[in-house]
Amino acid sequence: MGDPGLFQGTFELEEQVMEMLGAMLHLPYACGYISTGGTESNIQAVRAMRNRNRSIIHPNIVVPDSAHFSFDKVGDLSGIDIRRATLSDNLQVDTDAVNSLIDTNTVGLVGIAGTTEFGQVDPLETLSDIAIENGLPFHVDAAFGGFVLPFLKNKYKFDFEIAGVSSVTIDPHKMGLSTIPSGGLLFRHSLDLDNLAVKTPYLTISSQYSLTGTRSGAAVVSTYAVMRHLGRKGYGTIVQRCMDMTDRLVAGARNIGIQPVIEPVMNIVALDVESPTEIQSRLYEDFGWRVSLTRNPQALRLVIMPHLDNEIIDMFLANLDTVVNRS
Amino acid sequence: MGDPGLFQGTFELEEQVMEMLGAMLHLPYACGYISTGGTESNIQAVRAMRNRNRSIIHPNIVVPDSAHFSFDKVGDLSGIDIRRATLSDNLQVDTDAVNSLIDTNTVGLVGIAGTTEFGQVDPLETLSDIAIENGLPFHVDAAFGGFVLPFLKNKYKFDFEIAGVSSVTIDPHKMGLSTIPSGGLLFRHSLDLDNLAVKTPYLTISSQYSLTGTRSGAAVVSTYAVMRHLGRKGYGTIVQRCMDMTDRLVAGARNIGIQPVIEPVMNIVALDVESPTEIQSRLYEDFGWRVSLTRNPQALRLVIMPHLDNEIIDMFLANLDTVVNRS
Repeated sequence: MGDPGLFQGTFELEEQVMEMLGAMLHLPYACGYISTGGTESNIQAVRAMRNRNRSIIHPNIVVPDSAHFSFDKVGDLSGIDIRRATLSDNLQVDTDAVNSLIDTNTVGLVGIAGTTEFGQVDPLETLSDIAIENGLPFHVDAAFGGFVLPFLKNKYKFDFEIAGVSSVTIDPHKMGLSTIPSGGLLFRHSLDLDNLAVKTPYLTISSQYSLTGTRSGAAVVSTYAVMRHLGRKGYGTIVQRCMDMTDRLVAGARNIGIQPVIEPVMNIVALDVESPTEIQSRLYEDFGWRVSLTRNPQALRLVIMPHLDNEIIDMFLANLDTVVNRS
Repeated sequence: MGDPGLFQGTFELEEQVMEMLGAMLHLPYACGYISTGGTESNIQAVRAMRNRNRSIIHPNIVVPDSAHFSFDKVGDLSGIDIRRATLSDNLQVDTDAVNSLIDTNTVGLVGIAGTTEFGQVDPLETLSDIAIENGLPFHVDAAFGGFVLPFLKNKYKFDFEIAGVSSVTIDPHKMGLSTIPSGGLLFRHSLDLDNLAVKTPYLTISSQYSLTGTRSGAAVVSTYAVMRHLGRKGYGTIVQRCMDMTDRLVAGARNIGIQPVIEPVMNIVALDVESPTEIQSRLYEDFGWRVSLTRNPQALRLVIMPHLDNEIIDMFLANLDTVVNRS
């Protein structure tokens, strides 16, 4: 993908993938590209924000405290100050906290559609209003949620349907079920993509906006294939199945006296147990389960992906019961 | 590769690949990782330089004017001033020019082992001396040359064998013949790798030094496989064959009155023709050849990769002769 002049077939497929992603995200003529994943997409979105305002010497952006650590990478890389706004009790970002962190050096806002740890969706319409009031670009990190939220029974606005959203990260290689590495970055305005371009002297094209240079065509082709194969109906069936397993997991956990930290929005569950690190170790040592932890509050984190089934959910619940209640 | 605690097998293979790369580059205990390619590796090497000197407000690095455009990306991304030193007539960087660009805000030097456009190798030992004198880290971009130079009859020092070299970019997915995306970044001192780490709350590991988050294990596994399969002997045979074809191309070009811009060091040839853009168009329109151009001097650029053979070289020469001399 590094040189669309030489590899025209994959370039055409990339344009079609962007059109399909755009249509899914309520902006069929969005521009963007297939990246290596959420980290590259977030780095580039923040770079585009800064590049709208190159005259600001000490730029900052305001992100939810729940933002993925890729924002720490872009902060370290770019010198842009990453201001983390505190969360409300329901683990959405506190929009008053966001407002209070904005100053004349702020170059953009970020909201999350499916936080990495809890699967929560920020109050994106309010954040959009704040962005518009302050004349700021607003990036939505839907790396995980982008291929889940459109297919839920409960509807959430999270994409270009919201007026202030200027860019969206959405990862085909997460719930889009494409191969790794396949990330997605979409902009509302082509100006933002143009602002990422550097000159490319020896290629058939004169500039390149991707962060990486050489890119595998496989990312584009596999994303094209799986999106065409599944379609909205296919993704809908898969997401519904994951949500059914999620509900089963939460109901089963409640049966053994364990509550979720928040009512799951998508197929990410955080279970509120006492001594999470100890439970985590026991689950691994006694039964071989690898479970990750959330930070604040600390809890057992489970992502209910399509390769699981009810039998596995039930087996996990039985083992969790043993570890938590019978020892 | 995003979580070595979960995917221990690929993590172990990555360690073995780093050991093999290190052994090839005269530092068996180098540290580093398999990246997405030369751009990520160069970005990270520059970031590591800057992170050794976080107190400098307006940092700069000095690179050859022949440096790849990935350095423009890291400049735009990081705000680090990329100072491009002029080249000598032989298209190596002019070390006096490098010296004159160094000031108290300089955080590192870069040299190229195989420039993208001409395949030239900079005077790396002199650059190393300059780096040592000024107490600066010195990065060698051997993205292309790393898998060529060790196997040439003419020997070039370009890696950790040179005392001042602190990091090396070497791309398995170029002449290492691995799959895309497979880049390599190696550091002499683990401190530099540590300086890239960000905290990773929800993984089994506590920090991550790669720029991208999710990485495909395929990059590591295919690099491991091809390096073990070919070995030094296999790469030697392939490089020698590419150099034989390169010599054939240059001799054939001379026969039809066309000189190379420099005597090729590796399997990259720049042919000095009149009106290069016109010749480029004619080659494509009349015969279907896609040839790129160098900038300064402008010339036809050819990279003689292993999938070519003498028949193709001869066919190209015949067509070039027609376009240049018979029309």
